[in-house]
Amino acid sequence: MPNPTAAMLVIGDEILSGRTRDSNMHHLAGALTAHGITLAEVRVVADDTGAIVAAVNALRTGHDHVFTSGGIGPTHDDITADAIAQAFGVAITHRADAMALMTAHYERSGLPFNEARQRMARIPDGAVLIDNPVSTAPGFSLGNVHVMAGVPKVFEAMLAGILPSLTGGAPLQSLSLRVLRGEGDIAAGFGALASEYPDLTMGSYPFSQTGVFGTNLVIRGQDTARLEQAMARLTALFG
Amino acid sequence: MPNPTAAMLVIGDEILSGRTRDSNMHHLAGALTAHGITLAEVRVVADDTGAIVAAVNALRTGHDHVFTSGGIGPTHDDITADAIAQAFGVAITHRADAMALMTAHYERSGLPFNEARQRMARIPDGAVLIDNPVSTAPGFSLGNVHVMAGVPKVFEAMLAGILPSLTGGAPLQSLSLRVLRGEGDIAAGFGALASEYPDLTMGSYPFSQTGVFGTNLVIRGQDTARLEQAMARLTALFG
Repeated sequence: MPNPTAAMLVIGDEILSGRTRDSNMHHLAGALTAHGITLAEVRVVADDTGAIVAAVNALRTGHDHVFTSGGIGPTHDDITADAIAQAFGVAITHRADAMALMTAHYERSGLPFNEARQRMARIPDGAVLIDNPVSTAPGFSLGNVHVMAGVPKVFEAMLAGILPSLTGGAPLQSLSLRVLRGEGDIAAGFGALASEYPDLTMGSYPFSQTGVFGTNLVIRGQDTARLEQAMARLTALFG
Repeated sequence: MPNPTAAMLVIGDEILSGRTRDSNMHHLAGALTAHGITLAEVRVVADDTGAIVAAVNALRTGHDHVFTSGGIGPTHDDITADAIAQAFGVAITHRADAMALMTAHYERSGLPFNEARQRMARIPDGAVLIDNPVSTAPGFSLGNVHVMAGVPKVFEAMLAGILPSLTGGAPLQSLSLRVLRGEGDIAAGFGALASEYPDLTMGSYPFSQTGVFGTNLVIRGQDTARLEQAMARLTALFG
């Protein structure tokens, strides 16, 4: 059975303007691969309700899971929760359990739990909260859409909290061979081998490091025995 | 007049599996912002013809420019040029000018210009070549779609070659203020200021560095005088 598939939606003007370098995509990709969920697509959109709604609705019908990153803070540019509610056609309100968590947090911290911070307790109807062990303000899952913070430490902590509850398949494994030859030299033999193993994915990635040029050949798949067999063939060809 | 908009399409299993961290998106975002083109959306898809065709056709009708990254090498997993030809419904052949460039390159290098390497001279009908000063094998522009390599050094060199020929608007400028307060403390005043300047974009980005917590407040826009006026107001509020 093929693994479940997922998509990611990164929300943030700061990524698209080049101000900030996104790191959540790379983290999510590695975590999902290890969990046996195939990350099939990523989209990055601006802090724009129409763009978020369109992307969420396109992605949630095409994949088993959608993970979003960004736009759930207390300021006016944090519009993700409202956009998700709109995408699902449900209401959004200050939810009692989220308010209780955050009231306790701000009492402990001595900071005012003002109207802006209370915005972070606004959760679309029908959602399940995602725990935030870093800074309390929760994420949420609505249907198959998991809405998480953009701050990498918080994103990673939220993901670690929900990933065990999501059904994964066999983890995607990979083996790689580093050869000091150009892609053009190995392409014919590598392509022929790939066509003999349609159940595996084979990719080649050229590198040049401190004057050394070569290619990393990577074989990916779920069956360890098949992977090792293909790698033995590859090593005999180019190792 | 609003600036032209662009989308990016990153093609590569290696990004989605978490093996490789994409860096071309961040580079393109910064370069387009400086050139006065608004990067409105990014998509990352796998080495899959159907996914590439669907994404290219969705993006090229919605934006002034589409920039792609990856999948134009000599190996079997490099399917971008064929997918672009399919998306536009045009033929793809070994083109004489690309063959000539590459024949000369491989004669100089002493490496065989074999069938795999000749694949890199396959260009969709009607495309204009994009110069590759790093490793010769060209990219191409077909309509408003600019097809470039995934290797960052080559991507950056190709982009530097074509960007001056693309019409940009007023470069997006930004000013930022670093405050040692939480987002929740500044949200009300910051949001009120943002609503007074609908022509500017204001965003807040929390940080924690070596135990210091705070927020970077960023104002973006094209009109220097308006930016400076808004920043003066912001500094009076929180500086």
